[in-house]
Amino acid sequence: MKAEIIAIGTEILLGEIIDTNSAYIAQQLPELGIDLYYKSVVGDNMGRIKETFERAWNRSNLIITTGGLGPTDDDMTRECVADLFGEEPYVVSELEQRLRSFFASRGYPMPESNIKQAWLIPSARALDNPRGTAPGWWAEKDGRIVVCMPGVPPEMELMWKDHVRPELERRSGSEVLVTRTVKTIGIGEGTVDEMARPLYSTPGIGIGTYARADGVHLRIGAKAPTREEAWHRIIPVEQELDRIFGNAIWGKDEDTFEGHIRTLFADRNRTLAVMESCTGGLLASTLTDVSGAADYFKGGIVTYWTEAKIESGVAPEVIREHGVISAETAIAMAHAVRERMGTDYGLGITGVAGPDPQEDKPVGTVHLGVAGPDGFQSSMSSSFNSGRAAVKRRAVTTAMLLLRRTLLDQR
Amino acid sequence: MKAEIIAIGTEILLGEIIDTNSAYIAQQLPELGIDLYYKSVVGDNMGRIKETFERAWNRSNLIITTGGLGPTDDDMTRECVADLFGEEPYVVSELEQRLRSFFASRGYPMPESNIKQAWLIPSARALDNPRGTAPGWWAEKDGRIVVCMPGVPPEMELMWKDHVRPELERRSGSEVLVTRTVKTIGIGEGTVDEMARPLYSTPGIGIGTYARADGVHLRIGAKAPTREEAWHRIIPVEQELDRIFGNAIWGKDEDTFEGHIRTLFADRNRTLAVMESCTGGLLASTLTDVSGAADYFKGGIVTYWTEAKIESGVAPEVIREHGVISAETAIAMAHAVRERMGTDYGLGITGVAGPDPQEDKPVGTVHLGVAGPDGFQSSMSSSFNSGRAAVKRRAVTTAMLLLRRTLLDQR
Repeated sequence: MKAEIIAIGTEILLGEIIDTNSAYIAQQLPELGIDLYYKSVVGDNMGRIKETFERAWNRSNLIITTGGLGPTDDDMTRECVADLFGEEPYVVSELEQRLRSFFASRGYPMPESNIKQAWLIPSARALDNPRGTAPGWWAEKDGRIVVCMPGVPPEMELMWKDHVRPELERRSGSEVLVTRTVKTIGIGEGTVDEMARPLYSTPGIGIGTYARADGVHLRIGAKAPTREEAWHRIIPVEQELDRIFGNAIWGKDEDTFEGHIRTLFADRNRTLAVMESCTGGLLASTLTDVSGAADYFKGGIVTYWTEAKIESGVAPEVIREHGVISAETAIAMAHAVRERMGTDYGLGITGVAGPDPQEDKPVGTVHLGVAGPDGFQSSMSSSFNSGRAAVKRRAVTTAMLLLRRTLLDQR
Repeated sequence: MKAEIIAIGTEILLGEIIDTNSAYIAQQLPELGIDLYYKSVVGDNMGRIKETFERAWNRSNLIITTGGLGPTDDDMTRECVADLFGEEPYVVSELEQRLRSFFASRGYPMPESNIKQAWLIPSARALDNPRGTAPGWWAEKDGRIVVCMPGVPPEMELMWKDHVRPELERRSGSEVLVTRTVKTIGIGEGTVDEMARPLYSTPGIGIGTYARADGVHLRIGAKAPTREEAWHRIIPVEQELDRIFGNAIWGKDEDTFEGHIRTLFADRNRTLAVMESCTGGLLASTLTDVSGAADYFKGGIVTYWTEAKIESGVAPEVIREHGVISAETAIAMAHAVRERMGTDYGLGITGVAGPDPQEDKPVGTVHLGVAGPDGFQSSMSSSFNSGRAAVKRRAVTTAMLLLRRTLLDQR
């Protein structure tokens, strides 16, 4: 099946909203054996939507649209699909009743413009939208399918999961693509590529490398008539990558780096507390993005002022001698928070997030320190050439790297 | 000028990378008086890129592309533009030298495949890329312009700012669009719409309402031959909105809610510290996303464990009597951190981020407390029906709302 995605809406065209729906759908099409060739965005303009629909109709047999299903005159997806199919929309009384009771349950009268949301055409059936007022459309004619979903991401995602994806799964008879992502850290993309190269010629699979914030990912993909056959090709390659990269692999597929850190600590029954300055709490927040973080993460202190660092147990002499932005202060912060919170490990971050330099140290300078049992301590320093938000994010990734290294070394 | 944007790359098509470049460019075109009609994404496939280029060539006079300028066989933007123009690429020795010295400065020999990055065609000139190896192209023929920029966002943005935008500014002679965004909080979109309606018929301007995480935004837009004339139409409307919405307006245009909070505190010479549980540091991190946060924000404590709350000064009796997830505990956290850090105000957040309920309270339950001078205290409770990440984000927005209300009321 040849698919294309059309996102409809002037706000998306003009970049006021980032279109995440298209990426969400696109990621899932390969597993269904559906090839995606084009994505496009078009504003709320009848002529240009129709033109885009017609072109898609001529070159694809599955057209997936998001947006333009609202009640206002600006919402024209239904009108354009009806036009494409050469059919007249009519009001479906069952859908109308559902709409009216939706408004009644909220104590509002239904604006008459909303009646459009109860429309169908003869070739379409409605897709239920429990999270909003706009049902989707599944329209089909001459071997071509047009699926229309709302633009609000939670509404679209539920409709996709409950109705569209299962239906596409039933129909796609051809090959399925199965992928496995192997996530490494600490090795550059060029070297990862070289190390994995002997496997590139394995028949029936494809391997790609992708540099990401949390390291270099290797993606193994296999297309086969069944999911089982595809896995049969992937598994030996995955095992070989496990052997080649060993400890440099921290996770697979949907694993997150914060989840990996949680596992490292929980498996060893160790606890952690952090003291942050330039990252302003982003490390603690990231570590607690994974559920079960409370198994090892007791808490943190955000010492934005130097005074707060001293009040939280950092010796003023260390700061006086080495400066706030120094490896020594980062280590002192790690020791202080470890003691304050009574955890096995403590980690400290101090640096310059910008926009202005501090203590004559340039924006992007970051020092990290870690303290552990038996007087263990270690530090790491980095210099990021980027803006405030990116310095914070990259400092957090580096902190997690330091935690990983520490736990793997300490066993 | 009629523009269209084409993002090139299989990773973007398949949703592995979210295309932020198109939104970045799209947002700036209206100010240049350039109309954007289409955005599309196409994978690394010569036939489909050419097809997309040809269609764009026939309907637009400015085509902006991102991606496909790398050194590998998968990078085909140059080849496709050369084909579109019917011209042969040649190696420019000056560009080649720059490439070779880039690699030399890093101690690597230049892979011969990189030579593509020194190509030009007779109708194109190179656009400098100080952040990478791939220069852009500005190609022009028969009154049509094709601008090719790299896909890596920081490289693209610098090239856009330094070369593409200034050149487009010089050329666009037609009308410019100027917009002013007025940001409100605490009033629903329907009510905002009703209150602003009397202004909708003002000649020469357009007004739209947009529901956002930080409240409802009103955008005033005016198209005019000059920027001055456009402002001349906008200003009286803006003044009228200021009058209608008064205190409900917290900012304009690029203002952020965390910037607004900073101003409220800094203007009153007040300081703040926070104690967070379910948000795990995200409030502190958000407050410090704005530069100058140190003017009022001293620090925070992330008390992820109940034990950490008690060690940080929350009375165990309060927790025993009311539970960890309670307004009473949130207020006690606010008082405790205010005292610990010695600030004018303290704020506490406790809640259930999920995925599991806690103390029989459902996921999404959040209590916030604030404590201030002269025994002032206040609380707010919310229940968010969403996932872990969204609960954290929405709790942070609510906390900032509570801070705003507190400072405006206390004067």
